[in-house]
Amino acid sequence: MKQVTIFCDAKFGESALALLAEGVAPHELVFPQTPAASVLENSQADPAFARADIACGQPDIESIRQSDRLRWIHLTSAGFTRYDTAEFRALTAARDLIVTNSSSVYAEACAEHVFAFMLADARRLPLALQTRTESGTPEWLHLRNAASSLRGQSVVILGFGAIAAHLVKLLAPFEMKIVAMRRTRRGDEGVAIVTPGQLPAALATADHVVSVLPGNADSHHFIDARRLAAMKRGAAFYNIGRGTTVDQHALLEALRSGQLDAAWLDVTEPEPLPPDHPLLREPNCFITPHVAGGQRDESEALVRHFLENLRGFLAGSPLRDRIM
Amino acid sequence: MKQVTIFCDAKFGESALALLAEGVAPHELVFPQTPAASVLENSQADPAFARADIACGQPDIESIRQSDRLRWIHLTSAGFTRYDTAEFRALTAARDLIVTNSSSVYAEACAEHVFAFMLADARRLPLALQTRTESGTPEWLHLRNAASSLRGQSVVILGFGAIAAHLVKLLAPFEMKIVAMRRTRRGDEGVAIVTPGQLPAALATADHVVSVLPGNADSHHFIDARRLAAMKRGAAFYNIGRGTTVDQHALLEALRSGQLDAAWLDVTEPEPLPPDHPLLREPNCFITPHVAGGQRDESEALVRHFLENLRGFLAGSPLRDRIM
Repeated sequence: MKQVTIFCDAKFGESALALLAEGVAPHELVFPQTPAASVLENSQADPAFARADIACGQPDIESIRQSDRLRWIHLTSAGFTRYDTAEFRALTAARDLIVTNSSSVYAEACAEHVFAFMLADARRLPLALQTRTESGTPEWLHLRNAASSLRGQSVVILGFGAIAAHLVKLLAPFEMKIVAMRRTRRGDEGVAIVTPGQLPAALATADHVVSVLPGNADSHHFIDARRLAAMKRGAAFYNIGRGTTVDQHALLEALRSGQLDAAWLDVTEPEPLPPDHPLLREPNCFITPHVAGGQRDESEALVRHFLENLRGFLAGSPLRDRIM
Repeated sequence: MKQVTIFCDAKFGESALALLAEGVAPHELVFPQTPAASVLENSQADPAFARADIACGQPDIESIRQSDRLRWIHLTSAGFTRYDTAEFRALTAARDLIVTNSSSVYAEACAEHVFAFMLADARRLPLALQTRTESGTPEWLHLRNAASSLRGQSVVILGFGAIAAHLVKLLAPFEMKIVAMRRTRRGDEGVAIVTPGQLPAALATADHVVSVLPGNADSHHFIDARRLAAMKRGAAFYNIGRGTTVDQHALLEALRSGQLDAAWLDVTEPEPLPPDHPLLREPNCFITPHVAGGQRDESEALVRHFLENLRGFLAGSPLRDRIM
């Protein structure tokens, strides 16, 4: 196998660096003279870059332009705003430069977070953890019978990208009826896809509605009074997309009227909600402070993701999270 | 297909009965003149019983003895104490009578409950749900980085029956390293099995230790100071078996010293714990009041389980949860 040179400017901790060094061997790993401030930080031009076949991190755009060796750029972030220009896209297209990002790494944590929400809701964990009741009492029987199994229930996922795809994988053992809303069906989703126009019919039978919609002009207050009313009475709603996608006044009304049984939100508008916001006092509204993408071993996960793609790159296979 | 007659004395609600009627067609479904008080209640002798090929519910033992048609008894409970006698076992053996119970139905709820515990622990849900912190603050970063993914982590399951088997199925998408402890390996477990003697080595590397041990003389205080010390520092411990299997004083010490990162208990000794019990004040001890087996649609789940077995019975395949 021909040896390749990997330039890594990502600021990884010691154990992640060890994992990286072990994983890339026997290929060459080179680092910049000035390390980056974080895995998200744009790095400076560095002399070692000119030798690199692969750049992992947040490589300097001017260095990329000047390199005639570089074949693949792997970004250690999900966002890629600074590379998302017509000029840069033209450059990568002209040079057959592959660009991948790390959206799967954050997607897995987000999918696990909303999956934890769904199971906590099904098992009534917040209530059960507060209850010091005695077995056999009416309160206990009520709590016991309030729990349900996700098995065979139905879920609508609003937005279908890496998070939804991973969530679908995690839900597989529960044999749920899964429908996802996507503006344009690609055919490789592996689940039933509906367009926004077909959504009301899907909402009418869903036990769980999970939003992973990004925040943009199209999605502003996508979950409004009309769509909340289209949901099955007693459904649970989850949001790990963006707070701006929900009309929170309508959400509050849906919770108060019993139209929604519960709302689980990792995102709100604004974040955090002001201390006197009524959603904070709503007993069936469960809020975490925008932590769905977080994880303890983020650097290790980023390294594992890069190494998986490195194997693919060396084998000439398609890479995961390819963005250009 | 030859039509069979099914005698059902289980007290099911309307929707479960509809599911049953739809599912057994075109076979005959007969009910007793006096309905049972619950799905767990022993029923009375009934004239319709003599025509039954199959009995579903809690059939009267004397009626079973007198029937010369009956071929299969399906109990709507997990427990079967009243049938668990040498005399009754001899009767079923002599007549080739199949007896199944509904342990899988309760097992699924129990497995989902402990799975919800594991995900809530990984995503730090109790803390995250209490935190109204602002994105970008040090507290927020700390919370975000405290979350971890179950993916690739290791779990030891103490006891391997229907609950453990279902839990293994639910964990599949997480690609965890799973080891189960069982006194006698059968070879069909689908996961690595260790005996109690081999347990300390397995405990030393497990991120999660899940106990589903039943309460008996062998399991009394099985989780003691010695086994807690054998666990990996910072592991999480879960108990949905019986409270008597844990030395709670040793558990408290393990939580206080940081040897355990968290304990999630659906069972304690006694239940509930007295209000001044120190485990109730331990910040990383999360307790639900013996509700792991509960579920909203218990009757429907019991019917679905019976119908699955009915298809097997009619096809001559092995039945699930066969106890005799």
